[in-house]
Amino acid sequence: MKKQDLPRLIDGIAGRARTASRAMQDIKPASIKKALHAMAKLLEQRRAHLDKANREDLEAARKKGLSAAMIDRLTLSDKTIGSMVRGLHEVAALTSPVGTCYDQRTRPNGLKIYKMKVPIGVIAIIYESRPNVTVDAAAICLKSNNAVILRGGSEAFHSNRALAALFSEALGESGVPSDAVQIVPVVDREAIELLLKKEEQIDLVIPRGGEGLIRMVVEKSHIPVIKHYKGVCHVYVSSKADMEKAVPIVINAKVQRPGVCNAMETLLIDAGLKEKNRFALVQALAENGVTLLGDKASRGLLPAMKKATVDDWYAEYLDLRCAVRTVKGIDEAIEHINTYGSHHTDAIVTESSKEAAVFRSLVDSSSVMVNASTRFADGGEYGMGCEIGISTDKLHARGPMGVEDLTTYKWIVEGSGQIRT
Amino acid sequence: MKKQDLPRLIDGIAGRARTASRAMQDIKPASIKKALHAMAKLLEQRRAHLDKANREDLEAARKKGLSAAMIDRLTLSDKTIGSMVRGLHEVAALTSPVGTCYDQRTRPNGLKIYKMKVPIGVIAIIYESRPNVTVDAAAICLKSNNAVILRGGSEAFHSNRALAALFSEALGESGVPSDAVQIVPVVDREAIELLLKKEEQIDLVIPRGGEGLIRMVVEKSHIPVIKHYKGVCHVYVSSKADMEKAVPIVINAKVQRPGVCNAMETLLIDAGLKEKNRFALVQALAENGVTLLGDKASRGLLPAMKKATVDDWYAEYLDLRCAVRTVKGIDEAIEHINTYGSHHTDAIVTESSKEAAVFRSLVDSSSVMVNASTRFADGGEYGMGCEIGISTDKLHARGPMGVEDLTTYKWIVEGSGQIRT
Repeated sequence: MKKQDLPRLIDGIAGRARTASRAMQDIKPASIKKALHAMAKLLEQRRAHLDKANREDLEAARKKGLSAAMIDRLTLSDKTIGSMVRGLHEVAALTSPVGTCYDQRTRPNGLKIYKMKVPIGVIAIIYESRPNVTVDAAAICLKSNNAVILRGGSEAFHSNRALAALFSEALGESGVPSDAVQIVPVVDREAIELLLKKEEQIDLVIPRGGEGLIRMVVEKSHIPVIKHYKGVCHVYVSSKADMEKAVPIVINAKVQRPGVCNAMETLLIDAGLKEKNRFALVQALAENGVTLLGDKASRGLLPAMKKATVDDWYAEYLDLRCAVRTVKGIDEAIEHINTYGSHHTDAIVTESSKEAAVFRSLVDSSSVMVNASTRFADGGEYGMGCEIGISTDKLHARGPMGVEDLTTYKWIVEGSGQIRT
Repeated sequence: MKKQDLPRLIDGIAGRARTASRAMQDIKPASIKKALHAMAKLLEQRRAHLDKANREDLEAARKKGLSAAMIDRLTLSDKTIGSMVRGLHEVAALTSPVGTCYDQRTRPNGLKIYKMKVPIGVIAIIYESRPNVTVDAAAICLKSNNAVILRGGSEAFHSNRALAALFSEALGESGVPSDAVQIVPVVDREAIELLLKKEEQIDLVIPRGGEGLIRMVVEKSHIPVIKHYKGVCHVYVSSKADMEKAVPIVINAKVQRPGVCNAMETLLIDAGLKEKNRFALVQALAENGVTLLGDKASRGLLPAMKKATVDDWYAEYLDLRCAVRTVKGIDEAIEHINTYGSHHTDAIVTESSKEAAVFRSLVDSSSVMVNASTRFADGGEYGMGCEIGISTDKLHARGPMGVEDLTTYKWIVEGSGQIRT
């Protein structure tokens, strides 16, 4: 497609999404449920078709010399398809929040006033690489009666296009507007900039991927964005910690899956903890293959520890590396977390309910944990059934976002002819 | 103050606000209540001091040749002070939502997970002219444990500074951080631009004023903004309307206070309504001194009616003018409202519960009313006790915003040593 045709293409997508979103306000939960099950069925029935599209992406990826890990994430394997199918059935089974009325009051003049949960409208998801996001994100948006515009990574272009086509087919045969799921069918990055200017047609943008992508989206967008830039998560082991809990939590938070946003990046050790216990914490990390970067007091525990700089307090390693700082009490720990952290997920290990209360109250993060691993910060683990992302913003949704977070409300006022005097 | 000193000034204000907001997380509701009552007392005790500051503004306003209406709005009269004092006591009496825990669940692994309502942090209010906003807005922000930065209109500069100084005094003597209320003490407009770049220190911007000011704030801000540009409100009189309700609602919505955002700007008349009833509606408006601009069918009712253009469908007159369109049924009415309206407040007059349900469900506005005047869209009328503004955005808060809308939540996870497997 020619560059000068891009604006018209994006106009068309955004306009059709807005029209579909209006129609979606009136679509019954049963129809959406039907569409999600239909999509699950099509994923299995059209396997050969999907494989063909996926092979095109994989061949291009190999030619470009992408890493084995990247190629693995791109591949629509039996396992990936199985997980998409399961995800669709799970989202279909959730209760739809749309139409719920709450906060009702009757005013002295007889007006009945309440809030009604309604879809947000049109949501654009801008993401990288993995094609499973295409199916998961679309399912969650649909479940809350929204229309969605998907812009995935260029590496998964053919796979995403094939998946979106199946979605439109599933919608069409279920009485749901097929334009409620659309994909941007060009790899040109300018398409993203054009999309981000459509504030009349798009109500919300959710970017998912590396910090560079997210900063670009925030910078260019005329539309509200919900996002997190990164996850610089802390575990603070207080002087009142139970070491039987502290060591497993610290290891789990750092080692179980170091490449994700809810992994621990900095360990804060209280100077009041016995030296053998402070040593046990860093020793356990080192034994698990973690490279440690510490302040002076922490380096005293383990001579092999490298020297940490201020950059390490801000760092999201996403790797088997960990910054370590020894702090003088809970206030210094909280000060460190609020100053250098990313307001994602932070944990305290303590047996003191007073310390736990102070930490809960003063740590300014989307998830605050007491005696549990930061790795639990996840929509599934919180019992939301699914997750469209994690927000470290303070407005609208904070922490893991599920179906309910893709709704807004309107005020309904029911009268019998009242006028204001 | 010199231009080159502005950045440091704004840095200082934003930094102190962030520090105050951290301390505010731990301030008890009783202290805030005490501070609000103390402020009410100071407003009465320091009347002479306030009058002096206000006189400076009024003299400058007269020299600049501001209109009598503008000067009236600037004046700190007994009535204005009385209303500020009442407002402070009313906000003090509200129940604080901060600290409320909700949405609790216990997971199969024993984790207890819930949401806790917490203050947003630092809120900047950018507004025009009336000094009473200084007191009202600060009170609502404090009630929800936020720190606030106020930037009022240059005309009210001295009055606002005197009011903010009293607030800091009231806070200080009540054990609340006095930096929780700060004012930008310069009239230079560049101060606003600098403020809007402080995304690390400021969490939310609420602009209040004309569309020009609000568009400037949205354009320049790196911080999330909640706002409404304008209120293009509709009343749709269906073919099933009770005229005993329709005429008073239409007149009240247009005439009672035409200069405000919840006044009706366009009347939509159903073509299925009897001609004498359609005539009664436009005739009543004309008799109340309203200039009408109509489409062809509406002009047929009243030859004196001017011709409406598309610009009139988009217009917010804020005056005794009203656009009139005759529509073929409820679908065309809804289509008109969603296309030309501002998603603020729209009303239907109908005796049909089926029509009311369709209108409620499909009109995409922050307030949707059935058989009531659009003029009721207001925090006080909705029973919120106060209002910091009206949002036509879809994220976070929609419609009139009160104390609760200035809070966010964090997820609290309480464990006993759980790790993720």
